[in-house]
Amino acid sequence: MTRERLTLFDTTLRDGQQTQGVQFSTPEKVEIAQMLDGIGIDYIEGGWPGANPTDSEFFSNVPRTSATMTAFGMTKRAGRSAENDDVLAAVLNANTPAVCLVGKTHDFHVETALGISLEENLENIEKSFQHIAAQNRETLFDAEHFFDGYKSNPDYALSCIHAAYGAGALIVLCDTNGGTLPAEISEIVGKVIDSGIPGARLGIHTHNDTENAVAGSLAAVDAGVRHIQGTLNGLGERCGNANLTSIIPTLLLKEPYKSRYAIGVKQENLTRLTYASRKLDDILNRVPNKHAAYVGVSAFAHKAGLHASAILKDPTTYEHIDPAIVGNTRIIPMSNQAGQSNLRKRLAEMGLKDIDSNALPRILDVIKQREDDGYSYDTAQASFELLARRELGLLPKYFEVKRYKVTVERRKNKYDKMISLSEAVVVVKVGEDKMLSVSESLDETGSDRGPVNALSKALAKDLGPYSALIEDMRLVDFKVRITQGGTEAVTRVIIDSADKQGRRWSTVGVSPNIVDASFEALLDAINWKLVQEGANVT
Amino acid sequence: MTRERLTLFDTTLRDGQQTQGVQFSTPEKVEIAQMLDGIGIDYIEGGWPGANPTDSEFFSNVPRTSATMTAFGMTKRAGRSAENDDVLAAVLNANTPAVCLVGKTHDFHVETALGISLEENLENIEKSFQHIAAQNRETLFDAEHFFDGYKSNPDYALSCIHAAYGAGALIVLCDTNGGTLPAEISEIVGKVIDSGIPGARLGIHTHNDTENAVAGSLAAVDAGVRHIQGTLNGLGERCGNANLTSIIPTLLLKEPYKSRYAIGVKQENLTRLTYASRKLDDILNRVPNKHAAYVGVSAFAHKAGLHASAILKDPTTYEHIDPAIVGNTRIIPMSNQAGQSNLRKRLAEMGLKDIDSNALPRILDVIKQREDDGYSYDTAQASFELLARRELGLLPKYFEVKRYKVTVERRKNKYDKMISLSEAVVVVKVGEDKMLSVSESLDETGSDRGPVNALSKALAKDLGPYSALIEDMRLVDFKVRITQGGTEAVTRVIIDSADKQGRRWSTVGVSPNIVDASFEALLDAINWKLVQEGANVT
Repeated sequence: MTRERLTLFDTTLRDGQQTQGVQFSTPEKVEIAQMLDGIGIDYIEGGWPGANPTDSEFFSNVPRTSATMTAFGMTKRAGRSAENDDVLAAVLNANTPAVCLVGKTHDFHVETALGISLEENLENIEKSFQHIAAQNRETLFDAEHFFDGYKSNPDYALSCIHAAYGAGALIVLCDTNGGTLPAEISEIVGKVIDSGIPGARLGIHTHNDTENAVAGSLAAVDAGVRHIQGTLNGLGERCGNANLTSIIPTLLLKEPYKSRYAIGVKQENLTRLTYASRKLDDILNRVPNKHAAYVGVSAFAHKAGLHASAILKDPTTYEHIDPAIVGNTRIIPMSNQAGQSNLRKRLAEMGLKDIDSNALPRILDVIKQREDDGYSYDTAQASFELLARRELGLLPKYFEVKRYKVTVERRKNKYDKMISLSEAVVVVKVGEDKMLSVSESLDETGSDRGPVNALSKALAKDLGPYSALIEDMRLVDFKVRITQGGTEAVTRVIIDSADKQGRRWSTVGVSPNIVDASFEALLDAINWKLVQEGANVT
Repeated sequence: MTRERLTLFDTTLRDGQQTQGVQFSTPEKVEIAQMLDGIGIDYIEGGWPGANPTDSEFFSNVPRTSATMTAFGMTKRAGRSAENDDVLAAVLNANTPAVCLVGKTHDFHVETALGISLEENLENIEKSFQHIAAQNRETLFDAEHFFDGYKSNPDYALSCIHAAYGAGALIVLCDTNGGTLPAEISEIVGKVIDSGIPGARLGIHTHNDTENAVAGSLAAVDAGVRHIQGTLNGLGERCGNANLTSIIPTLLLKEPYKSRYAIGVKQENLTRLTYASRKLDDILNRVPNKHAAYVGVSAFAHKAGLHASAILKDPTTYEHIDPAIVGNTRIIPMSNQAGQSNLRKRLAEMGLKDIDSNALPRILDVIKQREDDGYSYDTAQASFELLARRELGLLPKYFEVKRYKVTVERRKNKYDKMISLSEAVVVVKVGEDKMLSVSESLDETGSDRGPVNALSKALAKDLGPYSALIEDMRLVDFKVRITQGGTEAVTRVIIDSADKQGRRWSTVGVSPNIVDASFEALLDAINWKLVQEGANVT
């Protein structure tokens, strides 16, 4: 049996940007687009060209993708031609192969929000799509408030989508306010198909205001639509959009979807899903939802005693899929046998084999204690490795930091302009030698990069024989989070480092003092690099 | 038309406790039970008496509730009579009016996890329920893995639930591994009803492993079940249980449920839902999910410019329900997508009315520019207000910071222990007076709280006549993220402040230097407070 093709349309960079507190930079947008492309999404909606500087800049530097890059906009305004609508022109000027325009289909909105006649709105839709189709672009119509509109005035709602369909657009039925339940979505999709628009030219766009966005999308597919819009991690205004991170594995792994439909995401790329989900949170500096379907840290965590012991006999007893398929991992309480065999596996991966069994529970205890204090070893793999090596007596003491001092100053310069400057002094003992180093925080352009920058430079400046070994490493990212350590709020800093040999590693530091926390993560970064280089202790 | 009664069963205190990282104390269990009772839940499952000390203690001090208090346990083990099963005896000894027992219905689990014959399992179910019913208790059977069991061996799965049904139990169909999709739940519920168990004696218990737990519960109701199990906030093992916080308002407010069914939750108690949801997170010391359906802080937040301006005309344009019905509130944040009408409303809310229309685009331009530089005014409303006042010439210059200097030092103390200490000097000009203040970062316990703490204390220490006005303010939260400002990575700091009059406000600062960014946010926090206090310029 040939499987019908479903297309996936990601709007993380457009509707996802409507999330409260989310503001992507252009480089972040590029990075996310590339990640979506790597998963196998069919359409990437990059933003609204002309609506804000970031979106415009993104389209000026749009990354090459296999996915169809799509610009978002709205149907032309009343009282001018499509050719003379500057908002529409800005969208077209982005020169994307596909354009998605939102437009009204709910009589109440046409009259209340737009304040134009129903006829004028129909004309706006038709003329807009005719204008774009004339330029040989692929077109999609986001039929705003379609379900509410259909309930209010079915004939008018249908005439709006037929106007766009007649002009060649793929029709995306949007439940803009998120209040329509799956059964009703299914029923109304059926009516739309009965009206003469085939499922192959229909899409669904749901919101999670009743926690049914994923189910609503699936119900629409069951009823015949062949195009699904959503976002990574369900990002989006209010309660978010339909979560592609949940929809994708469901379509690939679950019946009846698995047998009936083909999607652009290959099974082997599904393993990137967990990484992509966490990477997005990372970019947004959000704490990932531990309980997220498929990709959450706890999605395959088995706490109940009965469950955990059954899992050891056969994982299918309490798991609906193998976590590895989506790039996730099983978690079994540290205290039991399985926790230890997991740890042994992780140690073997870093080349630490033939470990004394007695050391394993001790390492697990230290991890638990430190996680209680606010450390997190999920991403800070290099710090985890150093911790294990330290417990196993396999971490050389390359150098010792005797003390440091950082000064941050803000004052007027001789031109009466406020400037700031940081300076760091670090005193290190390497073998019997004591080294004093000082650095300031100015970059090549003379701008102050802050105290952590100064401290990092001072620390790396003179480590005796080790300096040559760490010369090629650089700090590539720096994340700060306030978290709970015991009963106090503490600062957790995660530093990503890289070297010229292509290594990239993450380290963690925790302290109520942000400079101290950063310093701890910096020290781990250098020590890990020295281990990799096989440095000899002086 | 008489509405059929649906019953709601809350298992936050039992299945919810299986959540990774969740461990309720007995007083917390009592508090949560009372909160659930206040909402109008029908059954409260308090835990498993005998399984752990907290659960046993809870049942010894069980609060009086209108809800039916329920003890959880499992069907008797093979090789002994129900009367002689000590685990079952402990459950009965809790003396609750209702008892819910979990038991196997999936042949694979009977043989693999229990290692007993299919016949023995059937007998365990039947005898257990006969034993409890003889004591005049209401009984429920959590039919574990029922949907997977039905797919594997429908006859056997049905014979298990009929054994319990025959002995008087209400049958709860559990999708224990969370992998069954709503359409399949609906289909299998239909088969169960066809087998002779009426919907009035059937319940549903779903998990959120595909993000469909709420939809699965609704699908089961559509197919005929009349009892729903779930938890507050969807707490529960792995991805959680069906979220009653989403299901309850849907049943009360949405068709077809609203007209067809009655539930124990009264409309007037629905306003407690948002409070209950956040209170549970409070007890668990979790950050509430901002995007939770109905009750999230962002559930009625309108960021997109088009949405925000329509909301101002009529809230039903972009809201599926009135937030007040569930005790939630609407938020219209500032962002670079906000239109002028949104801005005008925000200004009016801060008491800035009759604004010159020419000023609006200028303020929006400044916001856009600053958001490009890395600022974010979504949450930092107080900084937004200061920005607008500055542009409108309505911000007095209370004081001027001439310079500051912060030192962070880490060294050994006289006991050879590494300690850290920060010290800040701030020089401020108030009117013609120059004030020098110095503070260090130690808290009452002598622990170092870092450079921002020292700087904050030094800045507030002496502001001349203003000191008295800001005396009651304190820093309650501090968030840091690295973001892109133009082409450079910068640090964005958001500070939440509060005062004794119950005000709470957020301010933002941005700089490549984290101390500078923090200082800017601190300055805004103080200036905003001075505006509120109506301070006079010296």
